[in-house]
Amino acid sequence: MSFIKKLHNAWQTTDSLLMVGLDPDPARFPRELQGHPQAIFEFCRAIVDATAPYVCGFKPQIAYFSAERAEDQLEALCAYIRGHYPELPLVLDAKRGDIGSTAQRYAREAFERYQADAVTVNPYMGHDSVQPYLDYGDRGVIILCRTSNPGGSDLQFATLADGRPLYLHLAERVASQWNSQGQCALVVGATFPDEIALVRQVVGDMPLLIPGIGAQGGDIDATVRAGRTADGTGMMINSSRAILYAGQSDDWREAASAAAMRTREAINRARSL
Amino acid sequence: MSFIKKLHNAWQTTDSLLMVGLDPDPARFPRELQGHPQAIFEFCRAIVDATAPYVCGFKPQIAYFSAERAEDQLEALCAYIRGHYPELPLVLDAKRGDIGSTAQRYAREAFERYQADAVTVNPYMGHDSVQPYLDYGDRGVIILCRTSNPGGSDLQFATLADGRPLYLHLAERVASQWNSQGQCALVVGATFPDEIALVRQVVGDMPLLIPGIGAQGGDIDATVRAGRTADGTGMMINSSRAILYAGQSDDWREAASAAAMRTREAINRARSL
Repeated sequence: MSFIKKLHNAWQTTDSLLMVGLDPDPARFPRELQGHPQAIFEFCRAIVDATAPYVCGFKPQIAYFSAERAEDQLEALCAYIRGHYPELPLVLDAKRGDIGSTAQRYAREAFERYQADAVTVNPYMGHDSVQPYLDYGDRGVIILCRTSNPGGSDLQFATLADGRPLYLHLAERVASQWNSQGQCALVVGATFPDEIALVRQVVGDMPLLIPGIGAQGGDIDATVRAGRTADGTGMMINSSRAILYAGQSDDWREAASAAAMRTREAINRARSL
Repeated sequence: MSFIKKLHNAWQTTDSLLMVGLDPDPARFPRELQGHPQAIFEFCRAIVDATAPYVCGFKPQIAYFSAERAEDQLEALCAYIRGHYPELPLVLDAKRGDIGSTAQRYAREAFERYQADAVTVNPYMGHDSVQPYLDYGDRGVIILCRTSNPGGSDLQFATLADGRPLYLHLAERVASQWNSQGQCALVVGATFPDEIALVRQVVGDMPLLIPGIGAQGGDIDATVRAGRTADGTGMMINSSRAILYAGQSDDWREAASAAAMRTREAINRARSL
């Protein structure tokens, strides 16, 4: 099943637009996992099991594994998610960006080694740098557009000669050219709801991956109002730390589960307004 | 020793602006390495030994290792280069780009796990996404500016309201703001020598990493004319495939060595014009 189809199904079956980002930080792991040789995998697996009923997908961030020499644990985690939750999209957050033969390698890493349904990519090198991911056809390609960090404005908000900011120029390019097989999505930060609305106008029903709620302070109501499609979906609203580290004591699994449930409900309340 | 100092020393001691890119493709390995369990490491090590006298540094491309589940061989290769050629800069070509805590992980991956002197990064997410690399102080941060592929124009060549293309806006930002500790360099493709000259005007003596000669067809004379600094250096001119796969039979080491020597000489002839 294609990423886009899987995502639409997940939105319906779990009634959730929440995506849980898996950014495992060993310094914040519960005591019981300290010193465990597969602590990263075990922590993430427990979070996945605790939150799966309340999410539309999972998004492991590869840097957290690479910095710990834990690619094997990322492989095991991806296999676990695909094996136990085959109906939930698996997004590899890698933000890769390179050309031709190198991009082919990154696409192979994401789609074959880690078996991701979709991967995040960086558009700075242009259409041909994204093509090797698009060539996989059924997989999703989630392109950075307007990111939630302060420095996001340095390039993305540069004003072009036609008066538009660069990120809108990109959004239109993706919608009109790069998305010819209907497999693209865009990253737009929750810290800029007005800009989510502008992107939504340009890209029709294309899914948006929206980081920045929770620890980064984005407002859920404003995000949902700006980003939803006519059927009230259209978004993967990501939360990582606020869910992963919701509990600090022995009840960390239950705390993560409750945080995911609460976040789904907050999003769903906003959808009903 | 800082990356920039090491690079300046290497330019002098090897009399070379050539950087060899290590993009190991097992399908193109010589027969004697087919089936070898550490073929990627052995191939790259042989290329390093064969070409070291003629280069100003080495640039392993991480995607070629990740796609083959060969991070351990990349670690071994980086340790080999640092152990046997400590005077030659080791650049990890990773083109990472992410924010805050995630960027810290990527910086740790490049500078601690792989012990690189410098890393390539993607500027799309702005200054704060590059800061965690800059925080290492002595390490080099090589920022994508104007890339050598056709799609490079999609965003990099977008015309801003002040008439400049985006890549020049970026070059000026890096020179005036991001490079406060003098550790930055820029990637500018050899396929656009006029644009190398424009970047050079904006960034003073900042080193440029220039891919695109050899297999990609960039012209060495035009590149050197456009990019050199007053002392005739200022560039890491990268060649990968044209050197790695110069020989197809048992003489592949000698062929790579001869190709590196010839390329250094072609660059040096251009420097003397």
